[in-house]
Amino acid sequence: MAGEFDLIKRYLSAPASCRLRRQDGYADIGSVSTGVVLGPGDDATLLLPTPGYQLAISVDTSVANVHFPADAPPHAIGHRALAVSLSDLAAMGAHARWYLLALTLPDAEEQWVAEMARGMHELAARSGVTLVGGDTTRGQLSLSLTVHGEVAPEHVIRRDGAHEGEVIAVVGTVGGGAGGLREWQRGQRAPTPLLDAYLYPQPLLAEGRALAGLASAGMDISDGLLADLMHLCRASKVGAILNLDALPLHPSLIKTYGIQSARAMALHGGDDYALLLTLPEHAIVPAQQALHVLGQTLHLIGRTVQEGIFTTLQGEPLETQGWQHF
Amino acid sequence: MAGEFDLIKRYLSAPASCRLRRQDGYADIGSVSTGVVLGPGDDATLLLPTPGYQLAISVDTSVANVHFPADAPPHAIGHRALAVSLSDLAAMGAHARWYLLALTLPDAEEQWVAEMARGMHELAARSGVTLVGGDTTRGQLSLSLTVHGEVAPEHVIRRDGAHEGEVIAVVGTVGGGAGGLREWQRGQRAPTPLLDAYLYPQPLLAEGRALAGLASAGMDISDGLLADLMHLCRASKVGAILNLDALPLHPSLIKTYGIQSARAMALHGGDDYALLLTLPEHAIVPAQQALHVLGQTLHLIGRTVQEGIFTTLQGEPLETQGWQHF
Repeated sequence: MAGEFDLIKRYLSAPASCRLRRQDGYADIGSVSTGVVLGPGDDATLLLPTPGYQLAISVDTSVANVHFPADAPPHAIGHRALAVSLSDLAAMGAHARWYLLALTLPDAEEQWVAEMARGMHELAARSGVTLVGGDTTRGQLSLSLTVHGEVAPEHVIRRDGAHEGEVIAVVGTVGGGAGGLREWQRGQRAPTPLLDAYLYPQPLLAEGRALAGLASAGMDISDGLLADLMHLCRASKVGAILNLDALPLHPSLIKTYGIQSARAMALHGGDDYALLLTLPEHAIVPAQQALHVLGQTLHLIGRTVQEGIFTTLQGEPLETQGWQHF
Repeated sequence: MAGEFDLIKRYLSAPASCRLRRQDGYADIGSVSTGVVLGPGDDATLLLPTPGYQLAISVDTSVANVHFPADAPPHAIGHRALAVSLSDLAAMGAHARWYLLALTLPDAEEQWVAEMARGMHELAARSGVTLVGGDTTRGQLSLSLTVHGEVAPEHVIRRDGAHEGEVIAVVGTVGGGAGGLREWQRGQRAPTPLLDAYLYPQPLLAEGRALAGLASAGMDISDGLLADLMHLCRASKVGAILNLDALPLHPSLIKTYGIQSARAMALHGGDDYALLLTLPEHAIVPAQQALHVLGQTLHLIGRTVQEGIFTTLQGEPLETQGWQHF
């Protein structure tokens, strides 16, 4: 076993040969030193934090058949596990810098690991993040990613900064994660836009940084828009009016499932990794301009209020719900 | 399930109420700010690295029945998983600062988690390290720990700094980990010194820092003294003569297993988490003095040579082995 797992380690070291097209508008690649003083191979990796920046850290474990289908393409499994973690850094407005992978595998299938690593390394290179450590153990398939970002104190986006009377906005689309998961569960295997949204979520790192200093609060949408809006409102001690007509639904969602299901998937589905933000009125235009450069749109979906969560449809109150109803 | 796992989260947040006796000679507690700007609960934790220091990072996964017996006391499982990771920071000469826990559990047994967390938190408090993030998922029992330390650049202890003609030394004892594991496998459950060495390894953080600036190279002994000595020699491109009479065997080892088995366990057993170091001649006395303050001894067990690994017993060459024989 040791021999097989040593072989696997080769795929999990950062690939010097991984040269990617810089097609994504991420400005990080090559412009920032990796900050690695001593790479993996010693008892610990040594890194050089950037003076004046805070360190943003998050850990996420993806377990087979809990967080992703065990028979999903390994390339997608590698991409998705890293994307989910990087999305947390995007939501803080941070630069992604370093990550570690704790990989648990039932057996050492070299081809599977090579493909998984390729999916992970490709996203890492596009995101400007460097693999700086790892551990490979035998057991039920899971990937635990610890990601490290850096953010200037004045650019941090937290959940608890929203005030009454601000706009609520989304960057990215919602519902695609849930819609893609349902397609997978129904046996769809050939690529579709929805399946792609589920298997290949894109962490909105450049978008998060572009909104740093403009957004009053923010988080990523991983549990579903409504649940995550509640998290943000609770942390900021505000309420919200949500305009259901304005939800930026994934473009394939209505066609595939109809408007009712599409809206339910957007509100309750999760797995979207879009950004949910609040902004004061005066920050809307600068935020729209900053996102335009990245080819993205600021979708205004509601307003913060003093308390409670309310939804409207075609200008009419749809439901009136207190905190306790969710 | 979500409800049960939310309950568990309570045990995995850093316990403000954890007040421990400061009996261990660790000077960290309370003397250093935790450096936590924003604790867990947002998308990422925000930390403030100390200016001028390098960040030392390591991740280790402990899987049930691979790295520890699943039926070991949960208090010991929590202690041991953190100890194994902190030992890597000790070996770098670093101050332990922050850690994250990715916990995977087959089910939400509150009492088990409470005990596991207690073992982990007690060691964390003694070691001056703060829990700054985590993720709890359902699956085969495993604990993945990412630890962060800080070290001044001139105090880093690496594996690749040894030169020919230096002394090889050990701090701590060897063989106890393997001896204790064998006791456990034979059904021993009541505490013994060897079982304690296996279940409750102590990361030698203060010792590592005391030797920073004195040792030319170092690492922790996790795979067995001989394998780890080979790792160090290979990284430093030197050889070694190892004096088997001088091994600091765990005090209960010979009495329990006899000298031959004791020595084999020390050389090949692993799980000891002692420190293996090389020092130039002139650093021996200062190192002995620095360790004396901590109640520890610098055990001189050999010398570095140009190449090859040789062992001696009662002054006579025991075996002559080239690299390829290991």
